[in-house]
Amino acid sequence: MINVAVLGYGTVGSGVVEVIETNKKDIERKIGASIQVKYILDLRDFPGDPYEDKVVHDYEEIVNDPEVSIICETMGGMEPAYAFTKKALSKGISVCTSNKELVAAHGPELIHLAQSNKCNYMFEASVGGGIPIIRPMNSALTAEHIDFMMGILNGTTNYILTRMDEDGADFRDALKEAQELGYAEKDPTADIEGYDISRKIAILSSLVCGHYVNYEDVYTEGITKITADDIKYAKAMNRVIKLLAVSREIKGKLFVMVAPFMVSRDHPLYMVKDSFNAIFIHGNTLDDTMYYGRGAGKLPTASAVVADVVDCARHIGKCITILWDDEKVELTDANKLRSQYLVRVPASEKAAAESAFKISEVVDAGFANEFAFVTEEIDHDEYEEAARKAGSVISRIRLV
Amino acid sequence: MINVAVLGYGTVGSGVVEVIETNKKDIERKIGASIQVKYILDLRDFPGDPYEDKVVHDYEEIVNDPEVSIICETMGGMEPAYAFTKKALSKGISVCTSNKELVAAHGPELIHLAQSNKCNYMFEASVGGGIPIIRPMNSALTAEHIDFMMGILNGTTNYILTRMDEDGADFRDALKEAQELGYAEKDPTADIEGYDISRKIAILSSLVCGHYVNYEDVYTEGITKITADDIKYAKAMNRVIKLLAVSREIKGKLFVMVAPFMVSRDHPLYMVKDSFNAIFIHGNTLDDTMYYGRGAGKLPTASAVVADVVDCARHIGKCITILWDDEKVELTDANKLRSQYLVRVPASEKAAAESAFKISEVVDAGFANEFAFVTEEIDHDEYEEAARKAGSVISRIRLV
Repeated sequence: MINVAVLGYGTVGSGVVEVIETNKKDIERKIGASIQVKYILDLRDFPGDPYEDKVVHDYEEIVNDPEVSIICETMGGMEPAYAFTKKALSKGISVCTSNKELVAAHGPELIHLAQSNKCNYMFEASVGGGIPIIRPMNSALTAEHIDFMMGILNGTTNYILTRMDEDGADFRDALKEAQELGYAEKDPTADIEGYDISRKIAILSSLVCGHYVNYEDVYTEGITKITADDIKYAKAMNRVIKLLAVSREIKGKLFVMVAPFMVSRDHPLYMVKDSFNAIFIHGNTLDDTMYYGRGAGKLPTASAVVADVVDCARHIGKCITILWDDEKVELTDANKLRSQYLVRVPASEKAAAESAFKISEVVDAGFANEFAFVTEEIDHDEYEEAARKAGSVISRIRLV
Repeated sequence: MINVAVLGYGTVGSGVVEVIETNKKDIERKIGASIQVKYILDLRDFPGDPYEDKVVHDYEEIVNDPEVSIICETMGGMEPAYAFTKKALSKGISVCTSNKELVAAHGPELIHLAQSNKCNYMFEASVGGGIPIIRPMNSALTAEHIDFMMGILNGTTNYILTRMDEDGADFRDALKEAQELGYAEKDPTADIEGYDISRKIAILSSLVCGHYVNYEDVYTEGITKITADDIKYAKAMNRVIKLLAVSREIKGKLFVMVAPFMVSRDHPLYMVKDSFNAIFIHGNTLDDTMYYGRGAGKLPTASAVVADVVDCARHIGKCITILWDDEKVELTDANKLRSQYLVRVPASEKAAAESAFKISEVVDAGFANEFAFVTEEIDHDEYEEAARKAGSVISRIRLV
């Protein structure tokens, strides 16, 4: 019998209990043993809940029960999740988590602690929700030198951008709708400013190189400046605007950035809509691969946590290989990453813009008082310099 | 030191050697040990080849060398691959293969033999080329009850259909082009008649249920009857024609089939072009996921074989869980699977067709002498009965 404890009975935590109960037969076949949720840790009580008798308020009760072999940490945030995780791992109890903040901040330390205690720290659900991406990265793409990743890794912003694209909604209205539907939090800053996605690409970049990419070093632009007019330009260009996380190795240098991009209709990321996520990975011999699925949501995220539980249950007393040490990776200035830009300037500034930028294509989206064009491929420093010369820029978005 | 032998120095076999040599540093970091190709088995000699000194002609030399711990079987076909694999596994040597014929025919027996001898039989490359799909299925989607899979799993037919779609080519011309480019074999029967893809969906369906789905039981239609006119209808309907493998569980019954389908522009499989493959999987709590990548080609396929080598090297003397026994699964008659059909009849038969079919939509692709329509959702027996009543049918294709 595998005894599991769930920390935090919120959206993901209650999803974990639901997935284990719903798919118990399938899961037990895959583990080769029976499984049960023995404890649910929460500050609250849940009278009437079918699992109310499993709810405890004291973590010590869980971590000191020798029958508990796996803990699902679905609390989120740094504390007490960090302290609880360390205590469990140091006692040889495996921890499966959806907590990207904690993984992005302390992944290497917690993995090392797990390995020292013959247990596992697993975090499939921390990136891409229900999409299996951490496990393919650790155990399937192992013959590859991965030199490029690009992903839609935040369901909230993708939902907002899809609404703006399909309904012509303004950013503020689309955000409000996302909040009403529960896709965006009351304080949406972490999502719309790109902080959430920067943690996820930092985790993936770390796993690719085996060292520590600090999410605070990732160049990050959010989607708050995207307007309904920008969307009209995207449509005129047969493109959609997506918030992308990009990680690219060029001649041994690693560039990691988060920014809105105009994605062409030919690109596999074009059709990733609503709260779906996808991550596009290029390997030197494998060429392109892509992984697509629900990037958020109670059950898909919980399913990824429970897949980790199955893996831990299959490896009681053994360590699953995850190569991620705490050697810090120096990122190269993302301003040196090259791309084309759509640039919009007032029609009155056309001559100045033409002399400041190397223009590859003029774009007409029906705005008589604007001059808009696509630049040749330049890096961001070159863009900034040309923009200064051109004078006033209404907006600019990178192309991919 | 991990010593590897490669059986068959053809396209995939030489790719395996190339991937190991090219990415040796990355691979050794992931294994935590050094690796070398010690033997290459082939009937031929390869004078001038950088690895000519590794070529041997006698399998006994390989299988009796106690230093060899992993064999890559990239010969294809049933014999001698089957005998060689059994011999290796019975001596505790792990085998990694791209041989879908052998896996589809003898997977359960070979997995069992490996497990009895504390080694592994791995076959990531047998389905979807470079796309990691076997490993996600075995180790990532483990919390799920998978009830639906649908995939583009054959690069040759997808290349042909893409050429027909994009260039308006006839089937015969597109096939000829594919043969000239090396995407199709001289005898293309296994690909264009759907036999190759039926083996792949049988393997995936087996892994989902843990028992044996015989590829010979899979209802299979190829693409030889698709015409340039069918493609024009697809375009008029904002669709593309794809050869799909479908596996669907409905109330405990399993339906598995291979047939051409018209895929709508909204579907994630719409944009899977040329020799790319993708597999779309639905789980009861995970919802939709999709895996996309190179479905064929020397290096992508070899990369998948070498990922298996890495996994075997990490598990010397230990068994990786693969649940697939030889209990035969009775498939349910695929004629009971329901879908909509595009049906084309001569214009003169319009009245008969209107009385025989329940029509949901009339389609105009500019053929004055034809009447074409989309049916309501029916099963294939119902389709056949209506088609008999209608009289002459020019062509019919399922919709998805």
